[in-house]
Amino acid sequence: MDFQPLTPELVAAFEQIVGEAYVITAQRIEAEAYADYGRDHTEDLHFAPDVVLRPANAEQISKIVRLCHEHYVPITARGAGTGLSGGALPVHHGVVLLTDRLNRIIEIDERNLQVTVEPGVVNQALQDAVRERGLFYPPDPASKGSCFLGGNLSQSSGGPKAVKYGVTKDYVLNMQVVLPTGDIIWTGANTLKNATGYNLTQLMVGSEGTLGIITCVVFRLIPYPQQSILMLVPFRREEQAAEAVSETFRAGIVPSGMEFMEREAIEWSARYLNIDIKLPADIRAHLLIELDGQDLDQLYKEAEQVYAVLEKYDVGDILLADTAAQKDELWKIRRNIGNAVRYNSVYKEEDTVVPRAELPTLLKGVKEIGQRYGFKSVCYGHAGDGNLHVNIIRGDFDDDMWNVGLRKPITEIFELCVKLGGTISGEHGIGLVQKQYIGIALPEANLALMRGIKKVFDPHGIMNPGKIF
Amino acid sequence: MDFQPLTPELVAAFEQIVGEAYVITAQRIEAEAYADYGRDHTEDLHFAPDVVLRPANAEQISKIVRLCHEHYVPITARGAGTGLSGGALPVHHGVVLLTDRLNRIIEIDERNLQVTVEPGVVNQALQDAVRERGLFYPPDPASKGSCFLGGNLSQSSGGPKAVKYGVTKDYVLNMQVVLPTGDIIWTGANTLKNATGYNLTQLMVGSEGTLGIITCVVFRLIPYPQQSILMLVPFRREEQAAEAVSETFRAGIVPSGMEFMEREAIEWSARYLNIDIKLPADIRAHLLIELDGQDLDQLYKEAEQVYAVLEKYDVGDILLADTAAQKDELWKIRRNIGNAVRYNSVYKEEDTVVPRAELPTLLKGVKEIGQRYGFKSVCYGHAGDGNLHVNIIRGDFDDDMWNVGLRKPITEIFELCVKLGGTISGEHGIGLVQKQYIGIALPEANLALMRGIKKVFDPHGIMNPGKIF
Repeated sequence: MDFQPLTPELVAAFEQIVGEAYVITAQRIEAEAYADYGRDHTEDLHFAPDVVLRPANAEQISKIVRLCHEHYVPITARGAGTGLSGGALPVHHGVVLLTDRLNRIIEIDERNLQVTVEPGVVNQALQDAVRERGLFYPPDPASKGSCFLGGNLSQSSGGPKAVKYGVTKDYVLNMQVVLPTGDIIWTGANTLKNATGYNLTQLMVGSEGTLGIITCVVFRLIPYPQQSILMLVPFRREEQAAEAVSETFRAGIVPSGMEFMEREAIEWSARYLNIDIKLPADIRAHLLIELDGQDLDQLYKEAEQVYAVLEKYDVGDILLADTAAQKDELWKIRRNIGNAVRYNSVYKEEDTVVPRAELPTLLKGVKEIGQRYGFKSVCYGHAGDGNLHVNIIRGDFDDDMWNVGLRKPITEIFELCVKLGGTISGEHGIGLVQKQYIGIALPEANLALMRGIKKVFDPHGIMNPGKIF
Repeated sequence: MDFQPLTPELVAAFEQIVGEAYVITAQRIEAEAYADYGRDHTEDLHFAPDVVLRPANAEQISKIVRLCHEHYVPITARGAGTGLSGGALPVHHGVVLLTDRLNRIIEIDERNLQVTVEPGVVNQALQDAVRERGLFYPPDPASKGSCFLGGNLSQSSGGPKAVKYGVTKDYVLNMQVVLPTGDIIWTGANTLKNATGYNLTQLMVGSEGTLGIITCVVFRLIPYPQQSILMLVPFRREEQAAEAVSETFRAGIVPSGMEFMEREAIEWSARYLNIDIKLPADIRAHLLIELDGQDLDQLYKEAEQVYAVLEKYDVGDILLADTAAQKDELWKIRRNIGNAVRYNSVYKEEDTVVPRAELPTLLKGVKEIGQRYGFKSVCYGHAGDGNLHVNIIRGDFDDDMWNVGLRKPITEIFELCVKLGGTISGEHGIGLVQKQYIGIALPEANLALMRGIKKVFDPHGIMNPGKIF
């Protein structure tokens, strides 16, 4: 890739397009504030953009992209910067394009159960807006209070509800995208079914900003499930918690949440949140199980079936959360594990995913690898999807071991995932930090196709370069 | 495209690969039997293959494809030949590759709720096999008794259950594919979530055999819904039937089937099946509504909610099917409309799809266009998905009007779909017969991307040439 440097002429042209107030350079704001545009939630990585642009709409983005294309200047779209694989980091510098001004919920179409929305809308804001109309947008990553829908689309984000309702990709009907050449297209149609040509919508979802910049999206919605039951189930053995997950599904129950948390994960998060929680000494792990629907009696029936499954295992006292406050607190603990780990220690998070029933084997393998290489890991995640977040704690590792030496055990963890029928990222994406491992999951024939597709969309290779492969 | 003719040397090489018994030529079987390999269920089209091959596995397919690639010989995969857009027709002749010998259900993984299956398995055979284990594979096109899963994947087929459970694409986790160069890849991983590189799985699904030949697939399964209720609702006005569809969803109910049938559709199908059905004179259309789940009491509650919605409309006596026999008969009528229309008359079927609430407008538009151009149409389809099958009856049209003159009204119908936020195919694919209309749904920028992707996968353009674009 032969990128060209950003010239003052180009900066002037960008000012013409978006207005001077929306062109941010290192000279114009505080150093620390500027540095933030070169970071996300991935470890402690930083890459400085040459300029940060805040366009207002697709037309401005098209003009910006066209200039970058013509002048071979890298351009990286950035949402809220909550990514965990370094996907929004401008590793080749150039332009960072913020989508924060594209933040309108354009239309909630109650007749068709669809919503048209811009990429800079916060996930939670969309959820709240549609819930007021009795509608539900299920994908809910842990960062839902701050992450943007554009980022969710770029990584095909999941969240706890994915086990019943699917991930971001399962709700997109159609997207407006600015291609790396500057052309603006819609990828599909606003329909539940579409057999009209190749599925560009699904090609774009999860492509981590390397194939285009999403400027508008049509999501399908479903009726809001009015009732829910939440239970916290303590296990004396981690593997049994993992085993109970697939047993529950085999019993014909599809929970709307099925979260696994190691003892440490709960303890760290509760401490981080100043919540007083006392776990009996013999408890090693928990499952947080949510059932939802329109009818509470029905949910209690299902809960009984879940109890019947759990009876087979060595579980402690099950906490059934009755009140909204109790439920909120339990979910808050779950959602803040990532923050708590980040607060406690430098760490690397691996987004491992395997077929659901292989989770016990994966968990055992991760711990065994940790023991051999001398690291502690805090594990938690979406057990119903077989998606285990493995947080490797830095502990006493020196820079060399942390930055280089750990590659070996991480490789072993990923090789185990693939051996079990899984892969190296379930919902965080490959981005920058997992790029070195992609060969474990994907052979050269697959990567060659992906590179070929990238070239079709982005002949000058300007869009979010240095990611995925 | 400069294709090369099939040489005797190539035929000999194919015999080496698959064995002489599995190489079928026009000289070796009855003319009529051979001609069948050049037809599918699309109108009365026929294109003769130069040779028909019946390989046993992916390795043989890889060798065949590699030869075709090297020698620039067209190759078209063919499942059961039930397609409705001419997708399996060898319009450039060359090799037709049958997948009928790849017909094993390799593994039903009850622990992970997954099944590994070959493309030549009949849809219904898979459904039956997993149902024995209490599991459910929902996609069920009308031709489910004969169509192959490979064909379902190539068109991302739907069916009545799609409204609640989604279409074929929503159940594929991973596919083994022989690429047009002969390379064999797996497109993804056997996991519910996957954020590892571009989504080749979803790119392949619905690509109508133009990007590779599917040789194995891993589907996810769900618990089988043990209970269901089926009701046939007669309407005195077609538009009200269509309106009631989106009202039902707005009331928070997600039926597992929501089929629309014009009066003629039911009458023709019942007559075709020799079923005695008497419709009151004032009934113009029906909705067939199915509710399913694990709990019958719960379903009766939901049925009451549906009744409450229907009260707003001018409906006749609702038939609630209680027994399995009654339900089967109603579904049989619905499933055989296509066959009945085919039996009654030469026809063209358009697979229109719009956002669900736009269905009344589409239906009205189709009838109005028919009146202007002087044709009768029989309309039915998956109203819950906004997917209306429009069957244009030949009637007295001469060849010229039928083959050329009808393009204008069909164009108008498709333009209406797009104007309403829809597109020109919901589940049948573009194939050969809708190719001339694709520009209505997709602008040149989209088509250029698709052609570029095609070229990446298939540099010699040998695989199912002449389809989609």
